[in-house]
Amino acid sequence: MIVLFNCTCAVPTTMDSFHPVPVKVNPDLQKERDAALFNPVELTYLKDGGKDKTERRRRCELLAINDPDLQHKDISFMARNERYSNAVRKAVIIARKIKEHRLTNMEEKQLYISAATQYDTYGFGLHYGMFLPALSAQCDEEQRNYWLPLAENLKILGTYAQTELGHGTFIRGLETTAIYDPKTEEFVLHTPTLSALKWWPGNMGKTATHAVVLAQLYTNGKSYGLHPFIVQLRSLENHQPLPGITLGDIGPKLGFHSFDNGFLGFDHVRIPRRNMLMKYSQVSPDGFYIKPIHAKLTYSTMVEARVTLVSDIAYSLSQAVTIAVRYSAVRRQTEQIKGVKEPQILDYRTQQLKLFPYLAAAYAFTFTSFVITGRYIEVQNEMNDGNMESLSELHALSAGLKAFTSYVGNEGIEVCRLSCGGHGYSQASGFPELYTLTAPISTFEGENTVMLLQTARYLMKCATTAKRGLELPRFVLYLSQRQKGQCPARNESDLLDHGLLSDAFEHRARRLVIEAAQKMQSNIGKGNPQHVAWNNCHMYLLKAASAHCHFYVVQTFVKYINDTEMSDAVRDILTSLCQFYALHGIWQNAGDFLQDGYMNGNQLDMVQSLVGKLLDKIRINAVALVDAFDFRDEILCSKLGKYDGNVYEAMYEWAKNSPLNKTEVHDSYNKYLRPLMQSSKAKL
Amino acid sequence: MIVLFNCTCAVPTTMDSFHPVPVKVNPDLQKERDAALFNPVELTYLKDGGKDKTERRRRCELLAINDPDLQHKDISFMARNERYSNAVRKAVIIARKIKEHRLTNMEEKQLYISAATQYDTYGFGLHYGMFLPALSAQCDEEQRNYWLPLAENLKILGTYAQTELGHGTFIRGLETTAIYDPKTEEFVLHTPTLSALKWWPGNMGKTATHAVVLAQLYTNGKSYGLHPFIVQLRSLENHQPLPGITLGDIGPKLGFHSFDNGFLGFDHVRIPRRNMLMKYSQVSPDGFYIKPIHAKLTYSTMVEARVTLVSDIAYSLSQAVTIAVRYSAVRRQTEQIKGVKEPQILDYRTQQLKLFPYLAAAYAFTFTSFVITGRYIEVQNEMNDGNMESLSELHALSAGLKAFTSYVGNEGIEVCRLSCGGHGYSQASGFPELYTLTAPISTFEGENTVMLLQTARYLMKCATTAKRGLELPRFVLYLSQRQKGQCPARNESDLLDHGLLSDAFEHRARRLVIEAAQKMQSNIGKGNPQHVAWNNCHMYLLKAASAHCHFYVVQTFVKYINDTEMSDAVRDILTSLCQFYALHGIWQNAGDFLQDGYMNGNQLDMVQSLVGKLLDKIRINAVALVDAFDFRDEILCSKLGKYDGNVYEAMYEWAKNSPLNKTEVHDSYNKYLRPLMQSSKAKL
Repeated sequence: MIVLFNCTCAVPTTMDSFHPVPVKVNPDLQKERDAALFNPVELTYLKDGGKDKTERRRRCELLAINDPDLQHKDISFMARNERYSNAVRKAVIIARKIKEHRLTNMEEKQLYISAATQYDTYGFGLHYGMFLPALSAQCDEEQRNYWLPLAENLKILGTYAQTELGHGTFIRGLETTAIYDPKTEEFVLHTPTLSALKWWPGNMGKTATHAVVLAQLYTNGKSYGLHPFIVQLRSLENHQPLPGITLGDIGPKLGFHSFDNGFLGFDHVRIPRRNMLMKYSQVSPDGFYIKPIHAKLTYSTMVEARVTLVSDIAYSLSQAVTIAVRYSAVRRQTEQIKGVKEPQILDYRTQQLKLFPYLAAAYAFTFTSFVITGRYIEVQNEMNDGNMESLSELHALSAGLKAFTSYVGNEGIEVCRLSCGGHGYSQASGFPELYTLTAPISTFEGENTVMLLQTARYLMKCATTAKRGLELPRFVLYLSQRQKGQCPARNESDLLDHGLLSDAFEHRARRLVIEAAQKMQSNIGKGNPQHVAWNNCHMYLLKAASAHCHFYVVQTFVKYINDTEMSDAVRDILTSLCQFYALHGIWQNAGDFLQDGYMNGNQLDMVQSLVGKLLDKIRINAVALVDAFDFRDEILCSKLGKYDGNVYEAMYEWAKNSPLNKTEVHDSYNKYLRPLMQSSKAKL
Repeated sequence: MIVLFNCTCAVPTTMDSFHPVPVKVNPDLQKERDAALFNPVELTYLKDGGKDKTERRRRCELLAINDPDLQHKDISFMARNERYSNAVRKAVIIARKIKEHRLTNMEEKQLYISAATQYDTYGFGLHYGMFLPALSAQCDEEQRNYWLPLAENLKILGTYAQTELGHGTFIRGLETTAIYDPKTEEFVLHTPTLSALKWWPGNMGKTATHAVVLAQLYTNGKSYGLHPFIVQLRSLENHQPLPGITLGDIGPKLGFHSFDNGFLGFDHVRIPRRNMLMKYSQVSPDGFYIKPIHAKLTYSTMVEARVTLVSDIAYSLSQAVTIAVRYSAVRRQTEQIKGVKEPQILDYRTQQLKLFPYLAAAYAFTFTSFVITGRYIEVQNEMNDGNMESLSELHALSAGLKAFTSYVGNEGIEVCRLSCGGHGYSQASGFPELYTLTAPISTFEGENTVMLLQTARYLMKCATTAKRGLELPRFVLYLSQRQKGQCPARNESDLLDHGLLSDAFEHRARRLVIEAAQKMQSNIGKGNPQHVAWNNCHMYLLKAASAHCHFYVVQTFVKYINDTEMSDAVRDILTSLCQFYALHGIWQNAGDFLQDGYMNGNQLDMVQSLVGKLLDKIRINAVALVDAFDFRDEILCSKLGKYDGNVYEAMYEWAKNSPLNKTEVHDSYNKYLRPLMQSSKAKL
């Protein structure tokens, strides 16, 4: 790949050269870095996928970080209106800069945008993330030639309008209609009920001029289900909503404050026939419907989105543990021996027990995201050759992993926040923005519970296939293997064996999948219809799907270490992390391993004891492990997680800029407090 | 108690009369209400502590709700500066109204304030919640006579300044100094380091004129530890900070946006000797230090605060489940049978599994809060008679329960939010405000992990006492009883027995406490000093403390049902809730019950099966169970949780008022988007 940067900056290739030289580094943090048993930059290369990728990422990031045009005051100090304006302003600058820097490669663009927006949302996020891809994927050639240049050159700004006020994940229930009128060769888009209002699409409230709208297609009096239509929402002259279109912002949310998630209603809005995106389905001028060859093609976009989310979660979780681990090295608390300095809170077992499971998970999820991204590319290539076989397998895997990792990710960010005590609650810590940005992943691109049930549905099919002795895809092959009797571990060192640990998770997953299948069968045997039995078995199905995903992550972590070239020092620490991830998982889900006697109480005692021992092995490398995530302060946006560890100075400087500190005496004093306090003569 | 309301409104005494008559009730919600097997108002009386208390609460709430002076636009639409002003404005009105309505009783005042502030913070929260109580508790008589009237009549506004930038829960580490100067008979208050800045106290940034400041007392060259001093911060003429005082807002946070949490630094600020609060300790004019009789007296305020927090958490969790259960009754999703209406999401097992554990916990915590509040009053009375014996017992219990319940409470609010799909993320749902207001309970009034370790420390002492055959206080008496061998349940109906369930939790708690004590012993036996052994055993200690609290809640729930008069219908549903709470707890912590063989795999299967069956029993009463919490819409502040169930209409009306919708075209269009999009001729 040829890098065409329009800049001459040297590429930083060590840890130290990437971060600006601090005046002083907090000595506790320096001590941690000096004591680490491996070189973090080596691990950075691994988690980026190679030294060249690290260099490219750093180059893209520095391009944004060092650009004076992209600087502004902390978004925490802006009201929502100002945040929205700022996001639009930056989006416009970013568009211009991408051209200037000649960033043509998609990955580089994304790296650059991500660094330029920092921890805020991107003002044209839906345009680039959904509108353009939808056009690319669903336009026929003539349509592509017309729409893509307009969208790529930002002559129009788009969004993707699917979700409605009354329907989200269950998309068949969407109510917006597109009725074909052969007389005028137009579709009539209409919002038949209040609950049919499009609701939530990003950038739709105030920004977008166009939308790809999902609506129920009717032609010749017949319903053909959901189809995509491109609809102009606002005038290109003055940005006013077009006649028949009701449009607005849906109001403030837990986060995403810079984002104008919108509502959209149609009052019999007419669009030309050719505004239906016609790559797969068509409606002829006289209203004849031509159906697509592969129904599955439309849902490969969802699979892609979920695959991407797994790496997004790994990224957010990495940020959270970076902040918390660094702060825990700097923060000292509670004198243990009179007169002796208070210990670093990172030395407390309780703190380690909070942070290290998520530190391990951040790496586990990073490696997992490699594997499913790779698998997605394979399946994509197969599909391009007309082979759809693996799509449902990947769909089941990506749905489950998205749910499993986002659950752990959100929980982990909150645990990290809480591990910083009260300061985690301040926006200076970076956690509030991080949490509120990551939290909606649990509901968007498919609600997590529904996702796990989709995985479960696939697993139930596989269990039946296995029972019949038929072949299964690789990642569920274990379901057709015989259940092992008992965990063979006799002592602690047996329990450190990666193979044995992976087997334990395999056993648990298989048992829970088979148990769920049996419960389904017995429920149906009692005369319940399929959907009732399914509902009755939800608790078994969720557990099965989750155990399956957990096993997949453990197995992938193990395999990554086995198959990847790395120095002994890095292998050593990753091995400990992987052991810890698995053993901690057993400890936390002990019931699942004990219930059928696969493990016994004695083995579980050993598990618990090993969890304690591994904390020490991770402890010494903890700061280096988070340094290896390689976040510049400008991207981490946390005063607690600063690379130089000068935490309190940074918090104080930040607080001084709080808008409430603009004046020593707030307006409300003269308006409200003074009259109250001086209502009769003060007695002081 | 004589109620002295200056109003003649009739007191609503049924469910229907308390809520305004809706134009229409969502039929699904009405159906739920009609089908419930008990009368919710009966349960309302129980959870309020009696019919008279319900009536009083309703009266206080209506007084605020119906007052036009207290109305304003939704705080979600205000920027922080406006929110702060609004909170101050309302605090001033509330102060005036309390006088007008002659609300002299403390509980009535609090009920009124709570209703008047709705889900926002109270502008004089620290003045009434900490400053006045600190003055009452720690002033000697002369000081009381001087300061209390000033504070009560709002001639001065106060806060309580304890926490510093570098120290929170470990208060001995606080660094602010108060050095006595006998020459001038003054204390010199000073902030010796950056980390000694007072940080976090509420209302301190912009509101308070005075503070009770905790500082390390030095006199005659000797240190005497932390003592309280009253310090004037701002001029009573013009509200400017006084010389030597640095003061400001600490900046935005995850929530509490209306609150001016502040920082405060002293540069050798001199205050008169008599500004030290001298009820317990004194410094004489010549600098002689007189120490308090009971060192423990100072920490009874912390115990009180934690006891109160348990009921605050029960309240917040009740709000969360009210919103989620009502919305789940109204929301229909995913067609099961072609052509048949989509089911209410409350019918899905997955949804029930999310909500009902927290519905049960909300009741369990409500009843638990009764018992520890009662115990607090007993202990308070004993202390007034000079008997300090029970304080450490109550301290241990309240610390652990605060941690245990706030952990579950915060988790529950998030689970409820997520159970509402994407809409839970909108501020229209009420969840963002609810979560961010409840989240800091995990860190304030003692960080949760530290709290659990304090409980564990007490339990370890008790384990030793029990081993020596000495007597233990009532609530830890079980530690001296012999461990039972095995859970005697042979069938599912055995497992519904309250006594058996309580025994199971007792067994688990005892086992884990004893195990932790043994681990401590063996660690010390290996030559580790006490504090190292303690740290090494953290994971066992936390588990033990948490299991102890869990047992306490189960036991209290059981006892409440046994000891309280109620109708059969209410007893029936509370019994199911209690069984569910306990069985779900066993299922979620299965490892703890299986590890030592107390339960076997077969029993656990039955537990899991019963959890499923009890869902049905709760399902039919779910809406009535949340109606019984008796929240008026004005207090719940949720469009999703509305009493009339007209959810989507309310969300749409709310969204229209979003500040971004003030104009159809946002300013940023002309500033940024138009130049970009029209940079060369548009091709459309």
